[in-house]
Amino acid sequence: MAEVALLGFKPQLVVPGMKAEAAVQFYKAAFGAEEIGRVTHPKRKAEQECPLILYAELKIGSSLILVSDCFDAAGEESAAAAGGGGIAFRLEAEDVDAAVKKAAAAGAEVMSEVLEEEGSLLGKVKDPFGVVWAIAAVGKKSPEPEA
Amino acid sequence: MAEVALLGFKPQLVVPGMKAEAAVQFYKAAFGAEEIGRVTHPKRKAEQECPLILYAELKIGSSLILVSDCFDAAGEESAAAAGGGGIAFRLEAEDVDAAVKKAAAAGAEVMSEVLEEEGSLLGKVKDPFGVVWAIAAVGKKSPEPEA
Repeated sequence: MAEVALLGFKPQLVVPGMKAEAAVQFYKAAFGAEEIGRVTHPKRKAEQECPLILYAELKIGSSLILVSDCFDAAGEESAAAAGGGGIAFRLEAEDVDAAVKKAAAAGAEVMSEVLEEEGSLLGKVKDPFGVVWAIAAVGKKSPEPEA
Repeated sequence: MAEVALLGFKPQLVVPGMKAEAAVQFYKAAFGAEEIGRVTHPKRKAEQECPLILYAELKIGSSLILVSDCFDAAGEESAAAAGGGGIAFRLEAEDVDAAVKKAAAAGAEVMSEVLEEEGSLLGKVKDPFGVVWAIAAVGKKSPEPEA
């Protein structure tokens, strides 16, 4: 199979119970984490004082980690997701389709088809060791949806 | 509290059932991982063809991950550990004691006292969000034990 360009990954901590903000504050206090970026859900941002965190990116020493609230594809915290949480890896690829196909050929389970999410392509696979890899496109953002 | 120098962390995948080698091969096939280092248990290495993997360090794109077999402090695969597995973070610190104390002060649970393991100091804390951080000393290795 042809080589697939993978640029790297970041661990993503998915925090149940709308506690991602609490987790961010904890990592600042415990490990001196520096918040270098944050993406909140646009709808929740407008409606609520406490927006749902899609990703807060933290730097601990020289390493990066993403902290997220649990949410389903519609951006709503789901009851199913709220009980879960855990750690996944967000893997950046130039060609998401090719990366998902290569992982599947090696034995990973495809959890969801490649879809456009948050303005870029995203596919999800679970590997034979239980690790979820969210494979995301980089450098090929689709245009912002019109308001 | 004084600043504690943390150098960064690496995700560590702990694989039950002596399947770390299989995981390494899978990540090579699925994500083009490159193995850049491996530490096996010295006793197991001498006695068996299939040594227990303390850490295999893989590079996926520009990112690093550690893959380990489940083992207890004595280096033996334990029945309890074999059923578990999962993802932890190995956090590198200049002063392990200070880093553990700061994390505990912020609300982390100290899982084990700071001990010498594999020739360097290691402490373990679990944060309020269920993540295990193995805090390891860097650059201050204790001398090799005499044979």
